[in-house]
Amino acid sequence: RDGGRELMFYYGRRNGMAAHAVLRDCVLQIDEEVAKLLELKAKLGGDDGKHQFVLKTAKGTRDYNPKQMAIREKVFNTVVACFKRHGAETIDTPVFELKETLTGKYGEDSKLIYDLKDQGGELLSLRYDLTVPFARYLAMNKITNIKRYHIAKVYRRDNPSMTRGRYREFYQCDFDIAGQYDAMIPDAECLKIVHEILSELELGDFRIKVNDRRILDGMFAACGVPDDKFRTICSTVDKLDKMSWEDVKNEMVNEKGLSEQAADLIGEFVSMQGGRDLAERLLQNPRLSQNKLACSGLSDVKLLFSYLELFQVTDKVVFDLSLARGLDYYTGLIYEAVLTQAGLSGDTLNGAEDSVSVGSVAGGGRYDGLVGMFDPKGRKVPCVGVSFGIERIFTIMEQKAESSADKVRTTEVQVLVASAQKNLLEERLKLVTDLWKAGIKAEVMYKKNPKLLSQLQHCEESGIPLVAILGEQELKDGVVKLRVVATREEVDFSRADLIREIRRRTSEA
Amino acid sequence: RDGGRELMFYYGRRNGMAAHAVLRDCVLQIDEEVAKLLELKAKLGGDDGKHQFVLKTAKGTRDYNPKQMAIREKVFNTVVACFKRHGAETIDTPVFELKETLTGKYGEDSKLIYDLKDQGGELLSLRYDLTVPFARYLAMNKITNIKRYHIAKVYRRDNPSMTRGRYREFYQCDFDIAGQYDAMIPDAECLKIVHEILSELELGDFRIKVNDRRILDGMFAACGVPDDKFRTICSTVDKLDKMSWEDVKNEMVNEKGLSEQAADLIGEFVSMQGGRDLAERLLQNPRLSQNKLACSGLSDVKLLFSYLELFQVTDKVVFDLSLARGLDYYTGLIYEAVLTQAGLSGDTLNGAEDSVSVGSVAGGGRYDGLVGMFDPKGRKVPCVGVSFGIERIFTIMEQKAESSADKVRTTEVQVLVASAQKNLLEERLKLVTDLWKAGIKAEVMYKKNPKLLSQLQHCEESGIPLVAILGEQELKDGVVKLRVVATREEVDFSRADLIREIRRRTSEA
Repeated sequence: RDGGRELMFYYGRRNGMAAHAVLRDCVLQIDEEVAKLLELKAKLGGDDGKHQFVLKTAKGTRDYNPKQMAIREKVFNTVVACFKRHGAETIDTPVFELKETLTGKYGEDSKLIYDLKDQGGELLSLRYDLTVPFARYLAMNKITNIKRYHIAKVYRRDNPSMTRGRYREFYQCDFDIAGQYDAMIPDAECLKIVHEILSELELGDFRIKVNDRRILDGMFAACGVPDDKFRTICSTVDKLDKMSWEDVKNEMVNEKGLSEQAADLIGEFVSMQGGRDLAERLLQNPRLSQNKLACSGLSDVKLLFSYLELFQVTDKVVFDLSLARGLDYYTGLIYEAVLTQAGLSGDTLNGAEDSVSVGSVAGGGRYDGLVGMFDPKGRKVPCVGVSFGIERIFTIMEQKAESSADKVRTTEVQVLVASAQKNLLEERLKLVTDLWKAGIKAEVMYKKNPKLLSQLQHCEESGIPLVAILGEQELKDGVVKLRVVATREEVDFSRADLIREIRRRTSEA
Repeated sequence: RDGGRELMFYYGRRNGMAAHAVLRDCVLQIDEEVAKLLELKAKLGGDDGKHQFVLKTAKGTRDYNPKQMAIREKVFNTVVACFKRHGAETIDTPVFELKETLTGKYGEDSKLIYDLKDQGGELLSLRYDLTVPFARYLAMNKITNIKRYHIAKVYRRDNPSMTRGRYREFYQCDFDIAGQYDAMIPDAECLKIVHEILSELELGDFRIKVNDRRILDGMFAACGVPDDKFRTICSTVDKLDKMSWEDVKNEMVNEKGLSEQAADLIGEFVSMQGGRDLAERLLQNPRLSQNKLACSGLSDVKLLFSYLELFQVTDKVVFDLSLARGLDYYTGLIYEAVLTQAGLSGDTLNGAEDSVSVGSVAGGGRYDGLVGMFDPKGRKVPCVGVSFGIERIFTIMEQKAESSADKVRTTEVQVLVASAQKNLLEERLKLVTDLWKAGIKAEVMYKKNPKLLSQLQHCEESGIPLVAILGEQELKDGVVKLRVVATREEVDFSRADLIREIRRRTSEA
């Protein structure tokens, strides 16, 4: 029964030259055992009484219906237009990567990675984000500078919460700048892009929190956190947006064994929010100014704010010492955009504590070491980027569309070719062919003899603005009756004029 | 060791009331064994000497670089514009489905489905095509009529052949019409769409073969094929585009046990190609005219051709009795578009035998039973659709782009904001902010003091047509020097005129 221990024993007794061959044998034996057992399992499952087929999508995933797709298209158009305005190229990568490409990049969250079944061949996993595949792409193609965007789905076996727009399959819209450049210029452009996109989408007021990993590390050192506790204490700080300071301090002291004094010092720092002025003040702070890392971080934040002023985005940006970000790979500036429920004005934004964040919609930062992890010689490519959590934005846009009086159209049809009498299918097909040839978006109903009323109803339902009506009389006169659905106005046009008239009347669409 | 057989024995000895509980125990035991063995395997793998990290994408997959993405975007724009012109909505479905959703839909090819690893929870598989998820979507949402397109990646663990554009991850562009309509009207529109898209993409000459499953079945019956051999003989006929008639006949007679006489009768039919006339002739054929199924198929092909004439696409469509299509779920009309290497004119197309097909680029047909397979009450929704194998089209377009003199641009940047002297970063950032605000696609280089030459080189390399140059003098005069990269022409414009001038000069872009 215990084949595993048996194999281990077998392996343990032999060693030396043939170790590799033995290993291979063991693995093959295991594969065989596994296959046999799984086959048996499948057989047992097949016997399991009458099978109830469940008609659903996988847990944590959803279909997009045509209305949701229309909203998604609108959001993507805004996002892509901004990325293109800033001169980005785009790439695409496969939905799965070699498992080892993702290994060791996500810390504790690695358990959320979807693995593919071993069906012979390579071990594969679904991508967890777009950043690691991007770094793999750069290393593999020896690219040292590029400005690229990538819009694609990523996969996390997380606890889904559909109502809050958290799924197991979700879109990310990433914009990244790779290359050795002068400090904070590409970083500032990433924040400019966040500002532009969130403003254009009209999601309500937002703020962009910024901090720097070097400031966090310097602060931890200055507060007396031991070196080996930097990352774990950083994870605890990251919970400040969901937990009170009391609870966070409690976790630091009682779970992570930090001294109460160190925790209290951290507590003072992480309550600080401000702008360029705060960076300047902290550069004078007796504790922080002793720490080289902290000083270079603070100087860069100062520099960043000077660029942000030129970009005219400081109204929404807050230097917030409590921002920590979960991912391991950040090395410098980090940021996160949150929508604020209350409509805060720019003046009261800095330091305002009563605003409630309804969740992060974009985040990012600098990761100068990630590409080097893939390069055989460890060559580094500095990178900074931002990722939009677009699913939450869709949810908000859908709610807005629901409460709006305007109907969301799911097609762009300009005209329905209809007939008022029977036996005019051929004439309808001929006319619609002419319209398609002219690039007009047009439909006919797929019935030989549809009723005029049902044709008009179809227009009402799908928001088609015009109907081109054919009847015996129109055919005799060589005209088409053009009906405006909204006003019921009807005018006859010659075939020659019809196309121009349809274009004229739907030119805004 | 042989835990499988032991468990089976255990199960075999017990039965009756507790069978379900026993089964559950067995499955749990198996899961435990599997987990233990896999853990052991992972340990063994971890010991396997120095690990060589392989920097690659998964077998049969590829990244798209910015140039390939530019081509892909162009192809998608053409395809989507056509789908929208014909009034289609769009939907999206998750990349994975419950495994059982895909079970029993693809016949022998089911072995090519990618399964996800069982990490607890549901058993999932990557989608194999877009048709089955579409049918699942219709049944799940009780939709009885819709015209939708869906562009997304699908997954097949097939033998990849990158040079011929065959991948394990590839795009499909699907257009389908679901609903109870009059015969052949939606079917004809699908063929019209194939004709439009292949013409617009300028891939060279093509033909669209059509046939009907009912004609094939009727033909098999008329030739004396036993009922239970219809599907397997149909699979053999499907190989006629890759094998000679001799080999196909050999397989029918020697492998599948068909009589030589029946095979010869089939051989006569499957050599027939033509148009509406062929359908008319076959309706008079003494063998076929006895078969009800065949007659309804032939009448529908006749009707189809009358609609195709109105749609002006008969020049490329051939009624070809050898077309069989692999998938099980087709119930009526089937079709496949192939590019023909030789430039065949419309006149010589029908019946031409010397043309060599370079492979199918689109295919589809009617599948009236698939949605019913998902509906708890078996309610049917008639469907017809077409799927473009767009990867092969990308490959052809890429080759065309390679051999063309025109450079493919990967960004749409209209103007680079540059400076001729040092210390003008702030001025560049201010100006580019104004341009972005006006919707101009603009860039600055991320250096404090870039050389003018390197700024101009960047424009040459990325095809940026204009440079807005700032210098001390220009700042003093309140102007910007606009340089046309191609002609090196330089003109000063006031800030107020600059944006209009950039728009004017890049309005075709």
